[in-house]
Amino acid sequence: MSVTAAKGFVAAGVAAGIRRRGLDVALVRSLGPAVGGAMFTVNRVQAAPVKVSREHLELAEPQAIAINSGVANAATGAQGEADARSTAAETGRLLGLEPEQVIVLSTGVIGAPLPLDRLLPGLSNAAAALSEQGGAAAAKAILTTDTRPKEATVTGAGFTVGGMAKGAGMIHPNLATLLAVVTTDYPLEPGEAIEFLRPAVDESFNAISVDGECSTNDAVVLLANAASGLRRTPVSDVEFAAALRSVCADLARQVVEDGEGATVFAEIAVTGAASNEEAKAIASRIATSPLVKTALFGRDANWGRVLAAAGSAPFNGGYAQVDAERVSLVYNGTPVLVAGAPSEDEPDVSSPSCLIELDLGLGDGAASYLTSDLSYDYVRINADYRS
Amino acid sequence: MSVTAAKGFVAAGVAAGIRRRGLDVALVRSLGPAVGGAMFTVNRVQAAPVKVSREHLELAEPQAIAINSGVANAATGAQGEADARSTAAETGRLLGLEPEQVIVLSTGVIGAPLPLDRLLPGLSNAAAALSEQGGAAAAKAILTTDTRPKEATVTGAGFTVGGMAKGAGMIHPNLATLLAVVTTDYPLEPGEAIEFLRPAVDESFNAISVDGECSTNDAVVLLANAASGLRRTPVSDVEFAAALRSVCADLARQVVEDGEGATVFAEIAVTGAASNEEAKAIASRIATSPLVKTALFGRDANWGRVLAAAGSAPFNGGYAQVDAERVSLVYNGTPVLVAGAPSEDEPDVSSPSCLIELDLGLGDGAASYLTSDLSYDYVRINADYRS
Repeated sequence: MSVTAAKGFVAAGVAAGIRRRGLDVALVRSLGPAVGGAMFTVNRVQAAPVKVSREHLELAEPQAIAINSGVANAATGAQGEADARSTAAETGRLLGLEPEQVIVLSTGVIGAPLPLDRLLPGLSNAAAALSEQGGAAAAKAILTTDTRPKEATVTGAGFTVGGMAKGAGMIHPNLATLLAVVTTDYPLEPGEAIEFLRPAVDESFNAISVDGECSTNDAVVLLANAASGLRRTPVSDVEFAAALRSVCADLARQVVEDGEGATVFAEIAVTGAASNEEAKAIASRIATSPLVKTALFGRDANWGRVLAAAGSAPFNGGYAQVDAERVSLVYNGTPVLVAGAPSEDEPDVSSPSCLIELDLGLGDGAASYLTSDLSYDYVRINADYRS
Repeated sequence: MSVTAAKGFVAAGVAAGIRRRGLDVALVRSLGPAVGGAMFTVNRVQAAPVKVSREHLELAEPQAIAINSGVANAATGAQGEADARSTAAETGRLLGLEPEQVIVLSTGVIGAPLPLDRLLPGLSNAAAALSEQGGAAAAKAILTTDTRPKEATVTGAGFTVGGMAKGAGMIHPNLATLLAVVTTDYPLEPGEAIEFLRPAVDESFNAISVDGECSTNDAVVLLANAASGLRRTPVSDVEFAAALRSVCADLARQVVEDGEGATVFAEIAVTGAASNEEAKAIASRIATSPLVKTALFGRDANWGRVLAAAGSAPFNGGYAQVDAERVSLVYNGTPVLVAGAPSEDEPDVSSPSCLIELDLGLGDGAASYLTSDLSYDYVRINADYRS
């Protein structure tokens, strides 16, 4: 159901020939007036659609989102920006909206021009196909090297939150992560969407890594149209925030599980750090270490690599605090290092999911991170991607 | 010749059974009194031999270096430190030196105990085998997943500088890089070795990356014994500094060329950055990007990935300055992006060496970095390493 699970949203996914095969243009719109917010990549090189969408969000509340896969429209200069504007203008024309009410998103190869000759007819077909059953097709149309669509829905007391995401490669905080669209029929006021979205994203999409890469394009967008007719209370706000967090967490987990070439899914839980920020720096460093990730792939509980990664986590221009003599490490339930002294026990690594618990013994800082292994297929997919 | 190229140095490499096959214990000593200096890993988790060798360098001028491969003696707690001290003590006993005059270095698996029952007899054999022809065997004995020894020698006017290194994986600044031993018969005063070593290392071993990893063990050691009998002048100092830089640069390049699974050798040259420090942050980010490195492996001039990596280079708690509209990129001699606008030209990527020149158009900051590609073999080697 994804983006059409909540009341008053329609979507479509069509094939416009931008990718060699499959669906590649998605459209999502609210039937009634909506409010929205978005978080974008922190990469210094921002794709044209990101620039244009940022502008639009300052000028108007978004009512529709046009997405293409196959071409990222990044590093495309002035032409790329004009193309992103044309995409928004054409979507607006088709849907009876101002261009500023349209968010445009692109994902795919960087540096290639957006093929408007295929995209614009695709948008026209997508506009004609918009329906309340269109969520599944839209979730397919935004994929690139993903092997499956990522959808999540949570139904609360009188409202629904639904979303779709694409991930696969270039998955890394901060919110330079991926494309995700979340819709809800919960009533929000203008300006509120981003307030609810930010904490939900920080603990979900901003705590996952497939390959440490930070893309030029990625974005998470929330649209809320109040179609539930629900009367808000402080209690319902809490319930909505929890539902939004749950949808984001579910989508984020699906993104990591379907990481490019992933065969092992790992959670890195760091506790006892000097601060939460240092815990996050250390968890992130472990989650992005090629040596940790190849060991995961090899089903080798080579926990020394976890320790080496922890000891070299960049933080505040130096490295996060680690005292090797205080560190304890539990690998898939087996303590392998206790206050700096190694045990003789060999962890079980037969499962495709792995839990690495690192207690630094220094303070109360904690953070967790989801990651996948680094496999032959990651290399194959990315050595082949453009050709 | 490596570490025995300079006058007055002897070395040996023997098989002590620490690794499954091949040489695994190296010994280097100066026949006469020497002075020395060393740079060690910046990893917060420092191996026992690093701790012990740091201590020794504060207490005495080093006269000998004992190295084992196969086991890193890192994350081994108090026992590991005792084992490193035993190694230095036994080496000192064998060579008639104080334990503090011995530097100990280990490389290999983290978290496994140092097998003194094999190492100590190995040291005894190595001490008996010390000779002026022993440099080549020593250079072999320090290797782990390297496919070939790394040796370099430069002969100046009346003096010689020679060195050996091991690299392969966990190759990344800052000097968390590798093991390297450089010897010279040039006359240096106590305390001077580190002054000459630091700038040479910064522009060589600290500007290479195979996989972005920062090991717990790595070290570069310089021993100088004045056996050349040369009379120093300001001119000879300059010549010595240049020879030392040249040996370090040669060894560093060999380390990258023999990076784990490397099939492509790439130089990343960043100019026009806001500062040299930002240039280095950007060059490092590009050199460690899995997407850039898999594209190198795939011989795909996917320069968009270079740009995306440049835009997400951590610097001072934020990101290094990049303005996409000012960036120019020359890929293997072909301009692919000129002041933010992509060209239509396709670079030639048939060569196993690749030059990526990124001009940010912002200032005078410049830095360059050497790196290798990310191949199937990198994954294979590191998924298998411990088992």
